[in-house]
Order: sequence, then C-alpha cells, then structure tokens
Amino acid sequence: MWMLCQTNDELKEFVMEAKKCTKKGKVADYIPSLGKANPEDLSIAIHYPNGNCVEAGDIEKKFTLQSISKVISLALVLMDRGTDYVFERVGMEPTGDPFNSIAKLETMAPAKPLNPMINAGALVVTHMIKGNSVEERFQRLLSFVQELVNDTNISFCEEVARSEFKTSNLNRALVYFLKQHNIIDEDVEPLIDLYTKQCAIEMNCYDLSKIGLVFAMDGVDPETGKRIMPIDIARICKTFMVTCGMYNASGEFAIKVGIPSKSGVSGGIMGAVPGRFGIGIFGPALDDKGNSIAGIKLLELLSQNYHLSMF
Amino acid sequence: MWMLCQTNDELKEFVMEAKKCTKKGKVADYIPSLGKANPEDLSIAIHYPNGNCVEAGDIEKKFTLQSISKVISLALVLMDRGTDYVFERVGMEPTGDPFNSIAKLETMAPAKPLNPMINAGALVVTHMIKGNSVEERFQRLLSFVQELVNDTNISFCEEVARSEFKTSNLNRALVYFLKQHNIIDEDVEPLIDLYTKQCAIEMNCYDLSKIGLVFAMDGVDPETGKRIMPIDIARICKTFMVTCGMYNASGEFAIKVGIPSKSGVSGGIMGAVPGRFGIGIFGPALDDKGNSIAGIKLLELLSQNYHLSMF
Amino acid sequence: MWMLCQTNDELKEFVMEAKKCTKKGKVADYIPSLGKANPEDLSIAIHYPNGNCVEAGDIEKKFTLQSISKVISLALVLMDRGTDYVFERVGMEPTGDPFNSIAKLETMAPAKPLNPMINAGALVVTHMIKGNSVEERFQRLLSFVQELVNDTNISFCEEVARSEFKTSNLNRALVYFLKQHNIIDEDVEPLIDLYTKQCAIEMNCYDLSKIGLVFAMDGVDPETGKRIMPIDIARICKTFMVTCGMYNASGEFAIKVGIPSKSGVSGGIMGAVPGRFGIGIFGPALDDKGNSIAGIKLLELLSQNYHLSMF
Amino acid sequence: MWMLCQTNDELKEFVMEAKKCTKKGKVADYIPSLGKANPEDLSIAIHYPNGNCVEAGDIEKKFTLQSISKVISLALVLMDRGTDYVFERVGMEPTGDPFNSIAKLETMAPAKPLNPMINAGALVVTHMIKGNSVEERFQRLLSFVQELVNDTNISFCEEVARSEFKTSNLNRALVYFLKQHNIIDEDVEPLIDLYTKQCAIEMNCYDLSKIGLVFAMDGVDPETGKRIMPIDIARICKTFMVTCGMYNASGEFAIKVGIPSKSGVSGGIMGAVPGRFGIGIFGPALDDKGNSIAGIKLLELLSQNYHLSMF
Repeated sequence: MWMLCQTNDELKEFVMEAKKCTKKGKVADYIPSLGKANPEDLSIAIHYPNGNCVEAGDIEKKFTLQSISKVISLALVLMDRGTDYVFERVGMEPTGDPFNSIAKLETMAPAKPLNPMINAGALVVTHMIKGNSVEERFQRLLSFVQELVNDTNISFCEEVARSEFKTSNLNRALVYFLKQHNIIDEDVEPLIDLYTKQCAIEMNCYDLSKIGLVFAMDGVDPETGKRIMPIDIARICKTFMVTCGMYNASGEFAIKVGIPSKSGVSGGIMGAVPGRFGIGIFGPALDDKGNSIAGIKLLELLSQNYHLSMF
Repeated sequence: MWMLCQTNDELKEFVMEAKKCTKKGKVADYIPSLGKANPEDLSIAIHYPNGNCVEAGDIEKKFTLQSISKVISLALVLMDRGTDYVFERVGMEPTGDPFNSIAKLETMAPAKPLNPMINAGALVVTHMIKGNSVEERFQRLLSFVQELVNDTNISFCEEVARSEFKTSNLNRALVYFLKQHNIIDEDVEPLIDLYTKQCAIEMNCYDLSKIGLVFAMDGVDPETGKRIMPIDIARICKTFMVTCGMYNASGEFAIKVGIPSKSGVSGGIMGAVPGRFGIGIFGPALDDKGNSIAGIKLLELLSQNYHLSMF
Repeated sequence: MWMLCQTNDELKEFVMEAKKCTKKGKVADYIPSLGKANPEDLSIAIHYPNGNCVEAGDIEKKFTLQSISKVISLALVLMDRGTDYVFERVGMEPTGDPFNSIAKLETMAPAKPLNPMINAGALVVTHMIKGNSVEERFQRLLSFVQELVNDTNISFCEEVARSEFKTSNLNRALVYFLKQHNIIDEDVEPLIDLYTKQCAIEMNCYDLSKIGLVFAMDGVDPETGKRIMPIDIARICKTFMVTCGMYNASGEFAIKVGIPSKSGVSGGIMGAVPGRFGIGIFGPALDDKGNSIAGIKLLELLSQNYHLSMF
Repeated sequence: MWMLCQTNDELKEFVMEAKKCTKKGKVADYIPSLGKANPEDLSIAIHYPNGNCVEAGDIEKKFTLQSISKVISLALVLMDRGTDYVFERVGMEPTGDPFNSIAKLETMAPAKPLNPMINAGALVVTHMIKGNSVEERFQRLLSFVQELVNDTNISFCEEVARSEFKTSNLNRALVYFLKQHNIIDEDVEPLIDLYTKQCAIEMNCYDLSKIGLVFAMDGVDPETGKRIMPIDIARICKTFMVTCGMYNASGEFAIKVGIPSKSGVSGGIMGAVPGRFGIGIFGPALDDKGNSIAGIKLLELLSQNYHLSMF
C-alpha cells in the first residue's frame, strides 16, 4: 500500500524544518493552564488504515482538545438530533470574523450562529447533546471520543476544565445572548461546565490521529471495521473542517494545505486526508489566529511534498 | 412669576391632544410585569421652583423608573467616584445604535461603552455605586432618590425587579462581555440584582417632576434650598439627557423638543427645563424606539406652544 | 451690556494657555493644501450683538471652512426644501462612528445617512441645494455665506478646492453608494465639484465669528437687524452643532464646553452662544478626531471661566 | 470509462425534477438586460475528459458569465502576477457577508478585500489584469476564455455590458473606497468598463462545461492535451470555488453538494468535479442569495445520486 512517509526518519526531517517557526508563535495564555506548555514542542502521528503509524516528536505528550472537540460534538449531535434539527439552530456558512465574535449575532436576523466551528455555534451544538444531566451528557460525549480512539482510558483534564470554567466570561456572554434569542434554553452554568469539560478532553497525538483516521475513512474505524458514525455525518464534519476548521485562516489553509483539519488553542491539529490517513499534531506555539504555527508549517510541507491537497 | 401653564385645565387640553397617538404605540411586553400597563394612560406633572405644580391625568399612578434611573445612578456615581474615574470606564459619546446593542463593544477598542445611557454603560455605572453589599449599595441609591423627591416613602417594586431579574439575559451577556474586558470586576448576579432593583424604583408623575426640577435647578431642591448634587454633575447629567436621553431618537427629540429628558420603557419621561421647571410624564404606550409615544407628543406640543427648547 | 472679555488682553492670556497643547496635535495632511498650515497658529474673534469684537492672534489669516460649511449648507437647504423634505433624506441622530464612515449606511435600512454633519449626510444636503447648474448652486450658497458675514468679498480657495477634488475618493464612494440607494440622483463629479468648492469657502476668524453670531441670535444679523434665516432653522442648526458638531467627540465637547459649535479639518471652529455672541477660531493643529486641539482647549477655558455652557 | 450519466434521458429526468423549484426563484432584475430571461429555463451540459458530453435542456441558449468570470480572471491574474503579488492585494478568507458588502472593508485593517469572489476582491483582481489599455486587457482575458473553451467565437454581450456599466454604482463605490486605501490605483471608469465587459462574456452551457472540465483536470484541456494554466493555479481556483464560490451560501452548498462551483446572477453555474468532469448549467431563476435555484437543486440531485461530493 502507498504511504505518505515510509519511516519515522523521513517525517522527523519535516518536523525539524517546521519547528524553526515556533519562535514566531506563542502559547495561549488567556487560559492559565495552557500557558504552561513548552512553545518548542512539535509532534505528529500519521495513522494509516492498515494500522501502521509513522511518528515524530514526543507523541506521548498529552494535550487538551479545545476547539478540536467542536467537530466531535457536532458529529455526536448530528447523530442525536438529525441534520434538520441541528441546522435550524446553527448555520453552515464560514465567516471572516474571529471565532469568539459576538457582533454578527446581533446584525444577522435571526441570531443564529453562522457555523458550528465558531464559539457561538459550538455552544449551541454542545447544548444539543442529549442526556438528563451534565454528567450524563459529558459521559456520552466522552464515550463517543473513546470509541473514536478505541481506547476507554481517554478522559479529561480537570485542572484545565476548572481553569477555563473560571475564565469563560466571553462564552457566558455568548450563551446569555443566545438564550435571549431563544436558541439556547438551558441554564448557563451547567452548559459552560459541560463545554469546558468537552474542551478539556485530553489525549496525545497518536490518539488524535486515530480520530482523524475515522473521519478520513468516512466514519469507519478501519482497524475494527466498526462504523462509528454515518457516512454523511463524517462528510459534513470534513466539510466544516475545510471551510471553517482553522478559525479565520481556514481559506488560506485550504489553499496552501487542502487537508480537512481542525485546530485548537492548545496547539493540537487533527487532519483527515479523505480515504487515506489520519493526522494528529501537537505544537502549542500559536500564530495570531490561534492555530499551531509549526503545525500549519508541517502540514504545508507534507501537503506539498506528498500532494495531499484535496483540491 | 412666569409659568408654563397657569391652570390644570390648560394642561389637560394638551394631554387630550397627545393622547390620540397612544393607539399607534404599544406597552413593553418583553418584561412581563410591564405588559400589564394600560396603553391609554397619559399623565403629567409640572413642578415650579416656587412649589406650584400643574398636572393632568392620574398623577397618583405609580410606575417604575427603568432607564430613567440611569441618570440618577450616574449622578450618584459621579459624586462617589469623581468624573475622571467614571469617564475612564464609560464614554461620553452618543451612538446611533439601539440601547441594548453589544456589537460596538466588540468593534471599538478598548471595549468601553460609548455612554452611560445605553445599557452597557449604565451597567458599568451601577457597578461603580459604592457600598459593601448589594443591599447597602441599593440603599444608598434609594436614599439618594428619596432625597431628590424629598419623600422617604419612595421604594421599589419587588415584582418588577424579580420579573426583570429573570429575563435579563441580554444584560447578563453585556456584563460578561465587560467582565471579559476588565471593565466590570464584580460577580454578575449581584450586579444584575442591583441593576434590576434600580430599574424597579417606583414613583408617580408628581415625584418624578420633583427630580426633574432638581436637575433643572442645577442640583438644588428649591423647596428646601438644599444642594443635593454639585452644579457640574447636574449639568453633566442634563447634557447626557440631551445627547442620549431618548434612546436612538435623541437627536430628533433635541430638534423637535429641545428639553433635556430621559425616558424609560415603563413609559415614564423625566424632563428638566433649565432654570425653570421639572416635568414628570407617564404614558406606557411606546413607539418603536422605546419612548412613550404620547409623552413625546405632549412634550412637543408644550415645547412649541411655550418655546421651551433650549436651542 | 455684559461681555465675555472686556479687552483683547484678557482674551490673549487664554490663547497663550491654550496654545501650549498645539504640540500634541498635527495639521491635516490628507488634503495636500491643508498640510501647509502652521501648526502653532491660534486665533480667535468673539462678536457681540452690539458690534463689539474682542480678538487675539492673527485674526486676518484666512482658512477654508471645510466641515463648518455643513451647517451653512444645511440652513440653506432647509430654506430651499423645508424640513420634511430634508429629513426624509437625512436623519437627525448622532452616531458614534467617524465622520467618513460608510459601514452604517449598509447595516441600516434604508441607507439614509444618520445626520447632516457626517460626510454622507452632508453630501446629501449639498445635493439638495437648488439651482440649474453647479455654478448657480455654488453661487447661491456663496451669496448666503456673504449675507451671513455681511461681506460680498467672501469667496473660495481654488487651490484647496482643486486639491480636494482630486483626493475625494472616499466621498465619491459615499455618493455612489447613496446613488445606488436612490438617495442621490445627480451625477457624481458635479456634486463632488460643488461639495469641494463649498468646503473651500475661505474666510478669517473675524468673518466666522459673525456667522456664529447670526446663529446665536436665532437667524438675525444684529448689526443690520436683518433676518437671514427663520428662527426654527437657526435652532435646528444649533441643535446639530451640539449633538454632532464636533465629529465623534461631540458628546465630550457638550459636557466639557457646552457651546453649540462646528469644527472643520482646516482647524476652524464656529461657536454660537445662544443669545449672547458668536465665536470664530482658527488653530490648524488637530487632535485625533479631527478637531482643532488648541481651539477646543481655548473653548474649554472660556466656558469654565465665563460659565458659557448651555446645560 | 465510468460516467455520471450514460444518456441524455437519464439527465433529463433530474432536470425535470429540479425545474419544479424555479417557481420559488426570480430572475435578477437589478440589471435590466438580465431581467428579460425566462425564469423557467434550465439546461445542463456535462463534459467528460474523453470528449463525451451528456446534456439536457436548451444547451444552445447563451447567457453572460457575471460572477463566474471572477474565477477565470483570477486564474489569468495569478499567471500574470504570481500568487504573492495577488494575495498581498486580496485575501483568501470566506466571509459571511453578502457579495457586494462594503462594511467589512472599513472595519478590517488594512482595507484588503477578504477574497476574490466578493465584488470588492474581484474588482482588485480585474485591476491586476496586465495590458496597456482596457481593450488590450479585455482582449487578453477574452483570449484566455476562448482558449479554455477552445473556441475563438466566444465574445461578450455589448448590451449587457452597457446596461451594467450604467448601473454599477455600488461597484464604483467599492472601487473609490479601494482607491482611497491605495489598493487600486487606476481610474475608476476604465476599470468598471473592463469589469462589466468581463461579466458580460457570453457563452452557453456546453461552452461553460468545457471550462469546468479544464479546472477539473487541473489546468489541462484533455481534448487537446494542452496545459492552459499551471496545476497549482487550477487548484487555488477550485479551492475558492468551494469556500466562496456560491456567495454566502457556499458553506451550505459544500455540505449538500460538495462540488467546486461558481455561480453568476445570470443563472449560470460552472462545476468542476476534480479529475472527472466539468459541468455547465443555466437556470436564470435565482434564490435570495443570488444563486440559480434550480441549478443548485439539480447539482444536489446529481451529487446525491452519483456520490460526487469531494468530502
């Protein structure tokens, strides 16, 4: 079978090259726990359908999913509620605004978040996770993540969740605004609790590359042969990863890299090369849009050298 | 001494004329308690420095101050903190946006509310009321109102306060946004509690005209001779009443009426004709900007007939 | 009769004090001709109804009216067309946006400029000046200015007009936008020609103080006893001078100074103290809002020392 | 070789189905010439690399490219100037705003259009077409289109060009705004002349499907074997077709259809299924976003039945 990189050594060279730009980035410091990350870290795992995995860097190092979790909760909610229900409450359009913007909610009528990858939309998605309590809903989400990774040890980082819960004022503003417009009708604190736990789900590059692989294979885990989500939901998720997966740098990323990807402010990036493989990256130094600066560079190098763009 | 209207009968005719347009307005229904008001009500009291008062309509009927309270809390806070402190945290500029808009907070840097008459700015003002607890701060504000009216029976309507507390989601969104930008640093629920009580302070037209009179007389209660606020603070308040007192219809009102005034969604309007008299109006049918539709008409008639415009 | 300053010497001291802050400002350089002004200049003339005039600085130095002309063209157009016609096409509300902003035209429906003091609104006003040609319309406006100053020598600076005509791209953008929305229906270049000539009308402080005096005296020239505009139009103009005369610093100016005033990027300010006197100021060093930095300081000093605020 | 539809009859059924929704749309009437189109028209041509073509409807009927031309001028300009030069002047990010919006140009700094598919960006692209005169630049663009279609008879509709030239006030506003910010430095009227001619380039479905095929085949015309544009430019164009090709319905279209496509207000849609075939559609009844309502429906049916989504 054809593979991207045959050996870890081949991959390591690209990592060394990409690592150079970590100096231009900086770790997210608006969430205290994230500020402790080492800005020079860069690791990657590439997971093939046959179970092979090539890797470089410290792929055991754990990080929290942050915005990467938005794709996963979207997949769960699409299964829970169906596309019609979901897209009545959150739009499908990319936006040129920052991920945490509230202004467009006001100028658009009705106040429906433009897409599920900006915070306003992701909060509506998390709101739609079924369950009788925050605990039950979070457990359902976590089980889904464990199923995607095929590892029941995946959990979340309580310290990060707590840290973010305390500093989530902007997200609380978004939720209250959405409550005002009847798009969210649960209490704010439980929803923020659930959302910050979702963002704090923790894993390493290797795990993340397995999730990317499931999306790449249209919802099937090729190692177990098990279908984890319907094909159309996997495709909807990949589409959002292309049009709005990398914050308001998604358009540039689509042109320069062309791999459906989702990043988080922890410095993680999940990639899904359709039909071919999954990618997990961790590089906590961020550019000014909030994407892993070395992670993007690394994906650019791989895309150019191995012709990975889907366009 | 020269007076606007010599008799109640004279005033009553203007009220009858203005009342005709109540049909085009409607009472605020987004706050359940306010929705019960009778849209056909219209009453007015005009208070002269010599203690005389002309009146028309049921001037005993009580209503809550709502946004009218913004001018009063501003006066208190300017005394509590001084102008420099206050205007570092809230601007002095009118805005063409609706009173509850959040968008401009995001597009302007820093996220300082444009003026103390829009909700964002008024919340910052209430945040600055000194005191060790919500109770103490509210008591200080209420005492100030009682002093302005010279009546220790003035209190607040618990039902309205409770009703608004439950539905204040947009205000909570504003406060969380302002907390995110370090303009407000107290907890949200106590502040909303204090703010909704402030808005629920209750009085009748007659009482309100006395507050207008104190502003008209540059901070002195002419009946007692007591100075209740410094002259420059009274003038700052009147200036805001002209530039932003009537929501985003303030410019039109300045041209057509030209009396420093502040309205509330309960249908109240407080007017202060500089050096001459105070006005209290209650007419709960509102126009689409949130101002008492018949109240504005009545002020237009009075301004035209008695040349009250300050311009 | 009571007067602000009895002697030129008294006034000169305030000018010396205000002049200190010229260093913090800078002359407008986006219009090449204006860039040649001396940033240290500051002159003032105060004109009383009895014909007396106190002055300080080089009050013979000529400058162009720029945005000050917006009040004058508004007065002419209100006489030409009536208030209903005019205010169907331009609003009465102040805005927190910069004077040259186009964004709000798009977000508001219909695309009616918020007020006649921002460029979009002023262009609509100039569009409404009656006449069969640009020449005739400009001549009518110029005659009106000559009548206000009572001096038929007032003319315009061709060099400034030409310079601005060449660089008026933002105004052309505004006019095309307004044409698109059917608010303006004449050709763009003639209108820009007329507008840049209007802005280039030239006079000195002394002349400008006479125009201020006519507005102060509700439309009558007290020296000739002639009524130049109806009282209600003079009052509408003064109202706009208070709510939007000093760009998006109007609110602060109303609080700190409280004199109906209109400024231009040439560094001119026209003031009208109702019923008392007219003011003409020239100080070309501007603050970041586009107002004469020393001119504002000077008005603050005068307002505080002589209690000139109308609030 | 595998084909989408083996016969015209197969395709005709989908057209009959899609045609039902033409009643909900309406033809563009803001450009007088376009208003004459028959809203019930719907035609399609699908072009395979082997030269085969299946078709349905009146595929001989000509229409103008309008916004479809934006992709073609972009390809030409990328060849003329290189990607660095081009993307310094126009961005790569999708936007949630309408295609003709000017507001974001003002709120973003610098005033760089977000992408080349909105009008502001397309005007900057057309501005970059090399040549010594409008005639020469248009001839170069037209020759490029003729090369893409492999037909030297392709020309433009003078009536539509003239009609649009007269009504292009919003585009003139955009150009003047961009001139003000030094992003465009040529005269406005020649640029509008060139742009309206570009939009008025005329062809039928069959022709358009051939252009789609060249993009699908990464820049090579499979019938002649000739490379018409470099592979990376073809891919950049396809990426923009996905992220912003269908106005502010691009996100929804990516999810529901998943074919790189570009639409125009004439009712045309060009599709490029990567590596497989090109599509040309004409259906002038538009939805409220400006896309061919039946054309989108038809592409949805085809995508679902033949699994054409690239996601």
